[in-house]
Amino acid sequence: MDDKRFQELYETYREAAETYLKVYCNRFLQLQTPWQKLYESMQYSLLSGGKRIRPVLTLECARLGGMRDWRTALPFACALELVHTYSLIHDDLPCMDDDDLRRGKPTNHVVYGETMATLAGDALQAEAYRMIAEAPKLGARSKVNAVAALSWASGANGMVAGQVLDLTDYGHDRATLESLCDRKTGFMLKCAAELGCAASNASREVCVGTQTYASHLGLAFQIRDDLLDVVGDEKTFGKPIGSDREEGKTTFVDILGVDGCEREVERLTEEAIAALRGMEDTDFLVTLAKSLARRWK
Amino acid sequence: MDDKRFQELYETYREAAETYLKVYCNRFLQLQTPWQKLYESMQYSLLSGGKRIRPVLTLECARLGGMRDWRTALPFACALELVHTYSLIHDDLPCMDDDDLRRGKPTNHVVYGETMATLAGDALQAEAYRMIAEAPKLGARSKVNAVAALSWASGANGMVAGQVLDLTDYGHDRATLESLCDRKTGFMLKCAAELGCAASNASREVCVGTQTYASHLGLAFQIRDDLLDVVGDEKTFGKPIGSDREEGKTTFVDILGVDGCEREVERLTEEAIAALRGMEDTDFLVTLAKSLARRWK
Repeated sequence: MDDKRFQELYETYREAAETYLKVYCNRFLQLQTPWQKLYESMQYSLLSGGKRIRPVLTLECARLGGMRDWRTALPFACALELVHTYSLIHDDLPCMDDDDLRRGKPTNHVVYGETMATLAGDALQAEAYRMIAEAPKLGARSKVNAVAALSWASGANGMVAGQVLDLTDYGHDRATLESLCDRKTGFMLKCAAELGCAASNASREVCVGTQTYASHLGLAFQIRDDLLDVVGDEKTFGKPIGSDREEGKTTFVDILGVDGCEREVERLTEEAIAALRGMEDTDFLVTLAKSLARRWK
Repeated sequence: MDDKRFQELYETYREAAETYLKVYCNRFLQLQTPWQKLYESMQYSLLSGGKRIRPVLTLECARLGGMRDWRTALPFACALELVHTYSLIHDDLPCMDDDDLRRGKPTNHVVYGETMATLAGDALQAEAYRMIAEAPKLGARSKVNAVAALSWASGANGMVAGQVLDLTDYGHDRATLESLCDRKTGFMLKCAAELGCAASNASREVCVGTQTYASHLGLAFQIRDDLLDVVGDEKTFGKPIGSDREEGKTTFVDILGVDGCEREVERLTEEAIAALRGMEDTDFLVTLAKSLARRWK
């Protein structure tokens, strides 16, 4: 797939998710409730840009899984983005990473205060499950599979466990660091693929292929992130360069070095692509993996 | 139903829920993961006693809805308790009510720190949905209904909105105070009934009857709580008497007075019981409503 065609398709998916999220936020804001600030706080982080990789992945996997109109999978795709957004809001809190900037903008608690940021995160998590449960034109079995996948990926043995690892012990070896990144990033990207497969009742082959692909992609993504924290450009990257080091965190750069990280991202990207072998029509996913390996933001 | 028989039945339900939650916690703790402290923190609040009114209500509604073995509804009943527990942990945080005591014991963040308490709450919310999705012997349609009910009751227009109201404006009139209590207590009690009905695929009559009952019960419960904050005994009640006043919150006692609150609890209890008219076998719910109206803890 040439770059232009890839960008067009990516934009189509991204815009569809963006619009869905905007409509979702508007529906709340129009209620004019006394707790309007809560909705504003949720909207602030939900619509603050971002690459929307997770929903894009869900939508493409739904299409690959055989869904005639991938737009039907939008509630699943965006539910994942709600959970991802809640995790960013809570990760930035003073009692967590205590970050003031996210994607080049003040973090949620800087704008709305710690109390409201905590509550916005809590509400977004609940809303994610409501979005799945109330999705039109999707079967009950698909929805239960989606709830199971999302709650597992983000729960006490998934994303939250990754955050605990990230915050409680900074002297990590490679195995611990990989387990941490799997939980903070890998599980959620794999979940994106699972949600697309759940929505489309995909074949076993598509399920296994896309989920293996997404897991490798997740780790490659995190290593690239660590790399950009050292060699990136603050304005392009959207967060301060060197912040990991400042916080005393062990990153993949500490363990593998800059060159080692670049090689590992390449290796994982190849493994991700290899997982798609035997499947048809995988051009988009192949190009996506390659473009993420080269990203600067 | 005489008091002894009622107590026995209540204990049977309560113990079943308690055991289910203990087994759930143990399964995690046995994993011996590097994020063990997270599980300990979750367990600390999950197994810290409490009346377990919500799961008891779910189980009785499942029985009333025609479920042959009400124990099948335990995952739904306990999922609600997970969400209730997460909300208590987050409500007690320094950036929320900043409470040091809950049920006579140090609050979660006092024992495990603010970071872990926030994460334990986050994990418990995800785990609630996993518990529903993975419940054995319950149909996909029942599970989707349960997820919809729970996420609605606890989400951005439900429990979290109630907490926003509670924290952002203390000068409440009666209508606002009722909207607040509906969201913080009423919605979740109604949800307990809904989960029991969802598990048992209850008839429309049982759904409407038990849910109306539970909504009235919720408001009565909250008014009784406000009353106990004034006339209660600290050791029995499990939290400091007069803490609402100290925090400058408007309570039902401010609006209705002590006698007015007692009358209102009585009236709501009668309305709750009246909602069950036409249903059979409602002795337990009737006695439950009466006993909550008289409770001292």
